Amino acid sequence: MSPQLNSIGKNDRMHFKQEDAAMLDFSCDYLEGMHPEILKKLSSENLKKHPGYGLDSITSEAAAHICKACNAPDSDVFFLAGGTQTNATVISAMLESWQGVIAAASGHISVHEAGAIEYGGHKVLNIPSEDGKIRAFELAKYLQKEASDGNRDHMVHSGLVYISQPTEYGTLYSKAELQAISAVCHKAGLPLYMDGARLLYALGSAKNDLSLSDIAKLCDVFYIGGTKAGTLYGEAVIGQKGKLDHFFTIMKQHGALLAKTWAVSLQFDVLFSDGLYESIGTAAVSKADRIRKALDDFGYEQAIDSPTNQIFIKLENSVYERLSKEIGMSFWEEPDESHTTVRIATSWASTDNDVDSLIKVLSEQATRKQ
Amino acid sequence: MSPQLNSIGKNDRMHFKQEDAAMLDFSCDYLEGMHPEILKKLSSENLKKHPGYGLDSITSEAAAHICKACNAPDSDVFFLAGGTQTNATVISAMLESWQGVIAAASGHISVHEAGAIEYGGHKVLNIPSEDGKIRAFELAKYLQKEASDGNRDHMVHSGLVYISQPTEYGTLYSKAELQAISAVCHKAGLPLYMDGARLLYALGSAKNDLSLSDIAKLCDVFYIGGTKAGTLYGEAVIGQKGKLDHFFTIMKQHGALLAKTWAVSLQFDVLFSDGLYESIGTAAVSKADRIRKALDDFGYEQAIDSPTNQIFIKLENSVYERLSKEIGMSFWEEPDESHTTVRIATSWASTDNDVDSLIKVLSEQATRKQ
Amino acid sequence: MSPQLNSIGKNDRMHFKQEDAAMLDFSCDYLEGMHPEILKKLSSENLKKHPGYGLDSITSEAAAHICKACNAPDSDVFFLAGGTQTNATVISAMLESWQGVIAAASGHISVHEAGAIEYGGHKVLNIPSEDGKIRAFELAKYLQKEASDGNRDHMVHSGLVYISQPTEYGTLYSKAELQAISAVCHKAGLPLYMDGARLLYALGSAKNDLSLSDIAKLCDVFYIGGTKAGTLYGEAVIGQKGKLDHFFTIMKQHGALLAKTWAVSLQFDVLFSDGLYESIGTAAVSKADRIRKALDDFGYEQAIDSPTNQIFIKLENSVYERLSKEIGMSFWEEPDESHTTVRIATSWASTDNDVDSLIKVLSEQATRKQ
Amino acid sequence: MSPQLNSIGKNDRMHFKQEDAAMLDFSCDYLEGMHPEILKKLSSENLKKHPGYGLDSITSEAAAHICKACNAPDSDVFFLAGGTQTNATVISAMLESWQGVIAAASGHISVHEAGAIEYGGHKVLNIPSEDGKIRAFELAKYLQKEASDGNRDHMVHSGLVYISQPTEYGTLYSKAELQAISAVCHKAGLPLYMDGARLLYALGSAKNDLSLSDIAKLCDVFYIGGTKAGTLYGEAVIGQKGKLDHFFTIMKQHGALLAKTWAVSLQFDVLFSDGLYESIGTAAVSKADRIRKALDDFGYEQAIDSPTNQIFIKLENSVYERLSKEIGMSFWEEPDESHTTVRIATSWASTDNDVDSLIKVLSEQATRKQ
Repeated sequence: MSPQLNSIGKNDRMHFKQEDAAMLDFSCDYLEGMHPEILKKLSSENLKKHPGYGLDSITSEAAAHICKACNAPDSDVFFLAGGTQTNATVISAMLESWQGVIAAASGHISVHEAGAIEYGGHKVLNIPSEDGKIRAFELAKYLQKEASDGNRDHMVHSGLVYISQPTEYGTLYSKAELQAISAVCHKAGLPLYMDGARLLYALGSAKNDLSLSDIAKLCDVFYIGGTKAGTLYGEAVIGQKGKLDHFFTIMKQHGALLAKTWAVSLQFDVLFSDGLYESIGTAAVSKADRIRKALDDFGYEQAIDSPTNQIFIKLENSVYERLSKEIGMSFWEEPDESHTTVRIATSWASTDNDVDSLIKVLSEQATRKQ
Repeated sequence: MSPQLNSIGKNDRMHFKQEDAAMLDFSCDYLEGMHPEILKKLSSENLKKHPGYGLDSITSEAAAHICKACNAPDSDVFFLAGGTQTNATVISAMLESWQGVIAAASGHISVHEAGAIEYGGHKVLNIPSEDGKIRAFELAKYLQKEASDGNRDHMVHSGLVYISQPTEYGTLYSKAELQAISAVCHKAGLPLYMDGARLLYALGSAKNDLSLSDIAKLCDVFYIGGTKAGTLYGEAVIGQKGKLDHFFTIMKQHGALLAKTWAVSLQFDVLFSDGLYESIGTAAVSKADRIRKALDDFGYEQAIDSPTNQIFIKLENSVYERLSKEIGMSFWEEPDESHTTVRIATSWASTDNDVDSLIKVLSEQATRKQ
Repeated sequence: MSPQLNSIGKNDRMHFKQEDAAMLDFSCDYLEGMHPEILKKLSSENLKKHPGYGLDSITSEAAAHICKACNAPDSDVFFLAGGTQTNATVISAMLESWQGVIAAASGHISVHEAGAIEYGGHKVLNIPSEDGKIRAFELAKYLQKEASDGNRDHMVHSGLVYISQPTEYGTLYSKAELQAISAVCHKAGLPLYMDGARLLYALGSAKNDLSLSDIAKLCDVFYIGGTKAGTLYGEAVIGQKGKLDHFFTIMKQHGALLAKTWAVSLQFDVLFSDGLYESIGTAAVSKADRIRKALDDFGYEQAIDSPTNQIFIKLENSVYERLSKEIGMSFWEEPDESHTTVRIATSWASTDNDVDSLIKVLSEQATRKQ
Repeated sequence: MSPQLNSIGKNDRMHFKQEDAAMLDFSCDYLEGMHPEILKKLSSENLKKHPGYGLDSITSEAAAHICKACNAPDSDVFFLAGGTQTNATVISAMLESWQGVIAAASGHISVHEAGAIEYGGHKVLNIPSEDGKIRAFELAKYLQKEASDGNRDHMVHSGLVYISQPTEYGTLYSKAELQAISAVCHKAGLPLYMDGARLLYALGSAKNDLSLSDIAKLCDVFYIGGTKAGTLYGEAVIGQKGKLDHFFTIMKQHGALLAKTWAVSLQFDVLFSDGLYESIGTAAVSKADRIRKALDDFGYEQAIDSPTNQIFIKLENSVYERLSKEIGMSFWEEPDESHTTVRIATSWASTDNDVDSLIKVLSEQATRKQ
């Protein structure tokens, strides 16, 4: 057993399979390393000398490529190592000490970041949400109530709105929805921040009508995830001019400033030089669409209507057990005593072969089920 | 200019050269990417599937290799992304809320981590030091004074001692010195933590008499840096059994838990499988020794007597200007109005050619100086 | 206008009436200063010399009196200035850095402490509640789900349970309910903490079956509020032996250690020397019972079934406006567009005259209503 | 023994005498309760109803009186409970998350507040000081070095300057010195904050040339201590217009907002209505001057040249032991093995009788010494 695992509390069980498990692993979208094109570029730059901390020409170029893709020439771009770190650092930078961040109760910062936002001194203010999405009218209602609350100054003031695209349930904000949320935010003087850990799988969805340019206009700050999008590690933060003052020092304070920042920006430079980011996202969602169609065809129940790379399947427990022996899946929840909901995901690294094999297993198990 | 740089406060100047600067760059020991052996292994594992968050077999093996190298089979090993992050996460994990960490005023956590320790709520308690080293008797004196201070309970209690090996000045703790510090700590019930960002350049020094095994015995927790030691990124924390409870969650809370932990542990696995870590350290310090000898021969003044990969040279300002045109160096300090102290460093990636060229420039400039 | 008010955000409105408002003020239970018996004792000790920081004999005696009243001779007692401060300091002292505190969503720490708990780095984990009370089975369910969650180590661990007695809605935990919650906590290894800001108004209720002795046994730590219970300021924390290590320093770190601690403990000493605390609580709740009966008699709707000193009345807006001109009340919420819910409260300082006058106004306005 | 004391770490010793000690207690300036005039006013207002949280007319009037005394009609005034709390709350309100506060190493926030500033996430940046005072040229030098440091953005940025008047050594800033410090601060864009815990004993010194009006002009924010100045508890913060935005909520977040704020402001209202604050300060320093003269006359050595209410005496250990039996003094430090330095203090409550008795004891012990 891994020493890293040794130190986990003794009652804990992780949802990640050990490597001796099924070859057909669809449990998440960050199982492989980096896209071969990235590895190629990294290999060619590996032994060259690069200034530290992002003050190098690769970082400049990567930032320029991202700004161009976002049609946002004046934006600032920063490169960090991981998603929770990025959320904690950006949110801390955007809030005053007496403010909190509004988010869906299912938002990643609300649940699965071990209290990183609170560690930085800020409350996560949950508002009602549906399938992972907050609604503009609920946000407006909350802000109106806050503004008129006689006890307002005894309470945490909202200072930022956090959304994820796609959400933690794989659902999407439409352009109209994001415009409405952005309008509510800016009318109230609040900035809007988007967690784009899996943004490529939103952009690559047939249901999507939001471009990077839209996002860069409607959100004050957002981040484009690399870890789930073909980089070995690393995330890129894009902030409208003036929204991330002193962010270099704030990154350092959060332990988020990488000495070899160039190695992260290089990876984003490859993704954003020739449309690679878009194409691998589209391909992955297409594969997910194939799987969704197969699930429908074979009579499986999809728990959430997700149009991105994530698929949520509600299974009878007996089917769940049989499938688990052949497919790597993530446990999601137990909707009732006789069912288990699982999540599977395609990624930039999914192969047609794997998808074919998965569909074959799904077909066989569905037959047995009946 | 890099957008990352754009956001730095307008009066700030970085000590890192732009890439159009001198080819002979000795400004620091993290200019290149990763050791070729690591790139080779990473390339071979790149498209395989690995469980996330360190629950994979590569991580288990890397941890086992490190434990073996440290002769510490029961230790826990964790892999993080960067040094400041590692210090902040470990120190937070080891302190109670009402405790602070003792360090030299020149310690990395005291100066160059942008207040990361204070951000986590803890004071850095400075005690007298010399050339970056604290002394056992000074530590004992401080602890005695603290214990007998009538106002003790109105003050931050010391809860941990932090040292760096080698120090920020490239100096070394001897085995006797570390034993003495460790004894003072443990007599007082304080754990001892070593920052080993450049530990290989201590182990590889002719003046060193401390083994990894000694360190693992004398320090409750220490970290072996990767970023300055041949990895693209990543640091390995080694903790004696029971000293890092719930560290997995604490890492997550600090944004220090990498989804693809296997990619960091793989790099350490290469370093610790066949003695690579030791051999590249020794080679780098030998090159630094050659440079030191040349400096002596040519009449340069070394500001600090460092036996590791870092070299500190006190230069007349006119010499400093001339050298700066040919050699990448780090500005260190201005000891007086007519002199500048610079730091140069060799690393695992330094070549004999570069060292030869450097020595040639030093020789030429020395001639002109006279 | 008060300068203190000047600095409140410009859109904010407070629920406190200005002094030119109605003479009949029942808006809260902390309008007056201190009980006359306390003022008498304070006057007699005022110019004597007392050692600072609680190291004086008045503090020792007050602590002994409280321990006796709680039938808890081994408990530790500490005196602080205010309620939010007490909650923040105690909760911080009882949690590890990676833990959060479980509370009702309506709990004071969840809503009306301006994020004081999060400022200390901890998440408030809300579980379902009803009329301000959490239920043992909901707590058990939450803890069971937490323990079995595959992602547990990516989440904040629960480390403490917070309840208020009476709750923010004036409701009460019965002895059976508190025993059940305490049992769930201790089975899970979690300590239980009770916020007793208004504890006297629980103890003084005809519906109450919980003694101070029960509370001291069932809760690891609790606090007895003074500010709403006849002191000018100050709260007393009671902790079972060993539950509040290094609390003196933690108080100092939180700015909660008063130089003249004796002036707070003196006030508690008066409350707990001759049963004053119990008697003033009982008298205040009796007065509230008279008002509740009158409300029923006159056909008013009580929004919450509170058996303590707080009364919640749902009023038609026109009635609300008329009553507001004669009675100081707290706005509570707007259940719908045509109604307003208000809170009124009796206290240790309420007089029979005031209650008579209030009932007269309620009677008159009720007549007009019909 | 007090339960509060029970919970102090077992090796700790407090410098406060137990009450069975000497009648002649000069150990500190906060031994008594409140000035009789304050008690009188408090008694008369005690059972009246006052709105909470500072939204009452007493608070308005107290603030107006303070503003008038400071010749600063536009300033904002806030009332808190204690000094450490005030420092932590104000400093947190004035700093950005990536900034620290500059202070003397002997400053109260640097040493004796148990890390309250760091608990709020900020580093205390120490600069050289003498007898508790920082010097304008040292501050300018530090700021110049910070601005030109190539590593500036890897370091905590200074965001505020903290000074105490009088200092922790009882010494004073002159008007010229404060003007010079203020000028350096404002040239660098840094606000200046003064801790006036004992400000009356500065204003009352024959050596003082700084008025409240000067201080209100030269410092962006300062606080006037009450605890050591005749109030039972409480401190008043005075901020130039716009320097303390959202301070009401920040006080709440820090647990520093008192429900019965009026009870603190009432105390300050008495102090600032008829010149009481000034007169009690002057009287106390006069008494200290008498003691200082006697010390000189009898051949005692004063360790620090303090012109305020604090007196520091270097005693041979045998004399120290004899004096300790008759006079309550604070242990200050052990300058060498055979000497002990003690601090004694007069206050608003010191009587001529006590001073006479003290001088008599000093005289007798001096005789024996010779």
